[in-house]
Amino acid sequence: MLKKSIFLFFLLGSLFAQSAHSQENINLEGTKSLRSPQVHADNTVTFQVFAPQAKTAYIVGNWMEREASGKAGKQAMQKDGSYWKYTSPPLASDLFLYSVELDGVTVNDPLNVYQVRDVANIFNYFVTEGPQADLYQVQDVPHGSLSKRWYASPTLNMERRLTIYTPPGYEREKKSYPVLYLLHGMGGDEEAWPTLGRVAQILDNLIAKGTVKPMIVVMPNGHVANSAAPGESSKGQYAIQFFTPDVGTGKMEESFKDVIAFVESNYRAKKEKKARAIAGLSMGGAHTLFTSSYMPDTFDYVGLFSAAFRMNDKAKSPVFDDFENNLIKQRDHGLKLYWIGMGKDDFLYKTGEEYRKKLDGIDMKYVYRESEGGHTWANWRLYLTEFLPQLFK
Amino acid sequence: MLKKSIFLFFLLGSLFAQSAHSQENINLEGTKSLRSPQVHADNTVTFQVFAPQAKTAYIVGNWMEREASGKAGKQAMQKDGSYWKYTSPPLASDLFLYSVELDGVTVNDPLNVYQVRDVANIFNYFVTEGPQADLYQVQDVPHGSLSKRWYASPTLNMERRLTIYTPPGYEREKKSYPVLYLLHGMGGDEEAWPTLGRVAQILDNLIAKGTVKPMIVVMPNGHVANSAAPGESSKGQYAIQFFTPDVGTGKMEESFKDVIAFVESNYRAKKEKKARAIAGLSMGGAHTLFTSSYMPDTFDYVGLFSAAFRMNDKAKSPVFDDFENNLIKQRDHGLKLYWIGMGKDDFLYKTGEEYRKKLDGIDMKYVYRESEGGHTWANWRLYLTEFLPQLFK
Repeated sequence: MLKKSIFLFFLLGSLFAQSAHSQENINLEGTKSLRSPQVHADNTVTFQVFAPQAKTAYIVGNWMEREASGKAGKQAMQKDGSYWKYTSPPLASDLFLYSVELDGVTVNDPLNVYQVRDVANIFNYFVTEGPQADLYQVQDVPHGSLSKRWYASPTLNMERRLTIYTPPGYEREKKSYPVLYLLHGMGGDEEAWPTLGRVAQILDNLIAKGTVKPMIVVMPNGHVANSAAPGESSKGQYAIQFFTPDVGTGKMEESFKDVIAFVESNYRAKKEKKARAIAGLSMGGAHTLFTSSYMPDTFDYVGLFSAAFRMNDKAKSPVFDDFENNLIKQRDHGLKLYWIGMGKDDFLYKTGEEYRKKLDGIDMKYVYRESEGGHTWANWRLYLTEFLPQLFK
Repeated sequence: MLKKSIFLFFLLGSLFAQSAHSQENINLEGTKSLRSPQVHADNTVTFQVFAPQAKTAYIVGNWMEREASGKAGKQAMQKDGSYWKYTSPPLASDLFLYSVELDGVTVNDPLNVYQVRDVANIFNYFVTEGPQADLYQVQDVPHGSLSKRWYASPTLNMERRLTIYTPPGYEREKKSYPVLYLLHGMGGDEEAWPTLGRVAQILDNLIAKGTVKPMIVVMPNGHVANSAAPGESSKGQYAIQFFTPDVGTGKMEESFKDVIAFVESNYRAKKEKKARAIAGLSMGGAHTLFTSSYMPDTFDYVGLFSAAFRMNDKAKSPVFDDFENNLIKQRDHGLKLYWIGMGKDDFLYKTGEEYRKKLDGIDMKYVYRESEGGHTWANWRLYLTEFLPQLFK
């Protein structure tokens, strides 16, 4: 009944309304042998871009040294017929972001569909080989579930979106689980940790290794000026702003009890201090330190990843007004881990140093981990893999 | 303690490792007033691209007429200083895909972070105004949850990933819900209906209007050669192939009982024929018609959206071997709705016509809906909004 030619029609990719201009990327005619990027066994990476008319072509990669001006580093590609090519030196074991610059215009790599948004920009990404990168890849291990859900925040009088990871077996087992609240930075939202932070992959892999306890991970949106990530709220597909008016107001910390109440009434979450952890990066580090002191008997595990401190000196909030006393209360209630990670080149390095002096001043114990590098997802993924095995022991 | 200059540092976007080359896209210096695309009140749309050195610039949009050669249509942009501009005629009320072609290279729009993958290509998208497009936008209504989960398929001896939508209130209520199984086409996977198909938005909005019953929607991966969408399995970030060896083998249909068993033992799903619906587009339409006849007493509602028929004549499977008898059994068991949607310009139009003749030949009742247009997501979203209100009445 159905003619074979129809099957061929499928094969030729003529099926979709967009297929004709799609074929350029689908490795048909002329690009059959092309893949970009190609990660080699020694973690050198080769990029290839078809751009016959371009006068200049660069790879702009987040592993490159910045220029003296502060601009992102880039490396010239070499023209080879209609294509431009560049091979990197051996890279670390990690996930990397890059773009292509053609005649001064920054665009995606047309041969790489793997993309991720960081703040207001889309980057291509790839993952290299080696033990650390293996934690960021999906492996053949039991998988948890990743969900987008909306919760009511009575404090803010709004519905808000969050991402929640439940560990493998959560739905089958009847038991309750400890919870890690994991907060993003100023440029992020509830999509940041699950994408750039590779949370589901890291948790699945470390739980399978047996070094991390099965736990729930809750990733709320830390910008109370928004209810959800760009495109996921009734604001529609709006132009993303790096700065939103809620930064440093204390409202996220004041409303954090709503997040906990939602999780503990909707999930089989253990409802005790020793089963609660909170951690965050940059602005989320500030949210973490202020929330955990504002609720000084709530979390037994606290993680500050490249943490900011107070981000708006003029804001009035009980979160800030009583901070020094709250911190002393938090110390006195006792906690099992106050973990601080900071990169040597982080622009918040001095902020972190001052904060540790404050902790020293009141004799509050913490574990300090200083890494190479700066204010980067490479460090935040690394910190997460180091922080997780210390939780809920 | 924290200096104000640090706050400024945040503001200037110098925070992130990628920020220097990011600024070009963040509407700072020189692009401050630029937004692309801009949807106007009359649904004309203006695109702007910064490309001072380009010799030619086009918008390649899925609303444009194809060229005689079969290539996707494109419209020349006009140069205006360092920018290129194009304004479309008034468009329909829908979601649209497009790319930019600069000097013959197809790339993303650097000013639009809203992107979606269709088969092996990334496109920018935007949503216009009007009643149909409003169904595809997030509105201020109660929201369901969207989850990525893994299920065991004993038939295929593998773990597989699916997307599942649970309606607003699912977690709060104690009642059970009917289930729609919704299948993608040959170029898709478990990400297709939730992204291009706007399933969560459509369900949230129609449930809020009261025209659609709250239901669970299950979106499995229809390619049994893969366990998950590109990048979401242990295959890693592989090069996407349009054609996978499982197409038309009958294995998806044979293993469909595993999907149902997983859903009915892990969710509060009603376990009866009158509470089960199945629908699919293109290849997923073939999966739908063969699965529903292979399990002839399982589904009371069947939807074929631009359905393919048999996609590999040589494959041996009980799904195909007994098809004619199974179809008669399905007819005799009775069902409430057998709905067929097809576009006038669809390349599968004749296939659909032949299939309807087959149904007529055995006196099997169906509802036929012929729309304008072809084999497009515009039609599949439209069919979904028309099919849903007829379910579980």
